[in-house]
Amino acid sequence: MLKLYYSPGSCALASHIALQEAGAAYATERVDFKSNQQNSPEYLAINPKGRVPALVTDRGILTETPAMLAFIAQSFPQAKLAPLDDPFAFAQAQAFNSYLCSTVHVAHAHRGRGYRWATEEASFADMKRKVPETMAACFALIERDMLRGPWVMGETYTICDPYLFTLAGWLEGDGVDLAALPKVADHRKRMAERPAVRKVLAEEQS
Amino acid sequence: MLKLYYSPGSCALASHIALQEAGAAYATERVDFKSNQQNSPEYLAINPKGRVPALVTDRGILTETPAMLAFIAQSFPQAKLAPLDDPFAFAQAQAFNSYLCSTVHVAHAHRGRGYRWATEEASFADMKRKVPETMAACFALIERDMLRGPWVMGETYTICDPYLFTLAGWLEGDGVDLAALPKVADHRKRMAERPAVRKVLAEEQS
Repeated sequence: MLKLYYSPGSCALASHIALQEAGAAYATERVDFKSNQQNSPEYLAINPKGRVPALVTDRGILTETPAMLAFIAQSFPQAKLAPLDDPFAFAQAQAFNSYLCSTVHVAHAHRGRGYRWATEEASFADMKRKVPETMAACFALIERDMLRGPWVMGETYTICDPYLFTLAGWLEGDGVDLAALPKVADHRKRMAERPAVRKVLAEEQS
Repeated sequence: MLKLYYSPGSCALASHIALQEAGAAYATERVDFKSNQQNSPEYLAINPKGRVPALVTDRGILTETPAMLAFIAQSFPQAKLAPLDDPFAFAQAQAFNSYLCSTVHVAHAHRGRGYRWATEEASFADMKRKVPETMAACFALIERDMLRGPWVMGETYTICDPYLFTLAGWLEGDGVDLAALPKVADHRKRMAERPAVRKVLAEEQS
C-alpha cells in the first residue's frame, strides 16, 4: 500500500488530495515540523532532503510533488487525472506544475526560509518584504494566462488543480489580495467543495 | 517543425541536447540576454515569463525544462530517452529533474539574480556568498544518492543526463570544487564525448 508522509500546510497537500481523488489505497503519516522531525535520522532515511512530501511505494520511495502527481495519475488511469495519451497536453499540465514548484513555491519560501539562500538577518527581512510582490506577480500570470477555468486545464479536472489549490492557500499569509485574482479565488472555492478535498483537509486539520 | 528558443549557458541546453539525441527535426533561435531580448514584447508573446527555454510546436508553445524533457521523450519514443512504460521508473526520472529545477537551479540563480527575491544590494551580496555552499550541498546529495552511474538512472541514458550535464557545467563558476564530486565529474566527461552533445555545444558556442 502507498504511504504518504506529509505536514499540514505544506505542499504535500497536493499529493494527498490527488491520492484521494484517484481512489488509491493509501496510508498517511504526519511529519512534525515543530520538533524538526523532517531532519531526524529516521526521516532522513526516508527522504535525505529532509522535506515533505515523500511517497512510499512497493518499488521504493518517491519525492518531488510534480513527479508524484504524474505518478499518481499514471498509476490510477481510470481516475483520468491527466491527459495520459496526449504528450502535448500532458506536457502542458506538467509545465504548469513545474512552474508552481520551481517559481511559485520558491517565491513563497523566501518568506520564512531565507536561511536556505542567505546568512544575514537583514537579508531574511528583505526577502520577506518582497514576498507579497513576487507572489502577486506569479498569481497574476496564473490568473491571466494559465488558469483556463473552471479547472486549470479547462473542462477537465487534473493533477494541476490540487497543486494550484495548495499554493493558492498560502496567498493571504503571503500578503496577497485575493480580490485581484477572481479566477484563482473561484477555483479555490470550487476545489473546497469537492468531497475528496473536504475529506483530506479534515484529516490534515484534525 | 519544432523550434527551440535558447540562450547559451542557460538551462535550455538540456532540451537542446535532448532534441538532438531524440533525432528530432528542429530549428533553434537564440535569445540575446545581453540586450534583454527575453523581456522584449516579441519574446514575451512567446513566453510571458521572459525566460528560456521555450519550445514552439504545431500544437502550441511549451515551457519549463522538466515538462519539455518529458515531452521530447514521449514524442520520440524510439529514442528511448525515458522509461515510458514504467510509471515508477518514469517518476524517479521526473523526481530527479524536478529536484534540478526547483532546488539546484534555484540555488544557482541566487548568485546573479538575487533581485528576483530581494531588493537590497547587501542581500544580493549575502546570497551570492552562500552559493558555493548551497550548490556544493545539492551536488553532494546528487553524488551520494542520486547519480547511479554511468548515467543518472543507471545503465540507460535518459532525459536526466543532459539536464544534470547542464547544471553541473555551472559548478566552477559557482565556486564548487569538482574534486569532491568524482561521479559528477565523470558523468560530465562522459556526456561531453557524446556526438549529440558535441554538436549542440558547437552550435551554442559559435
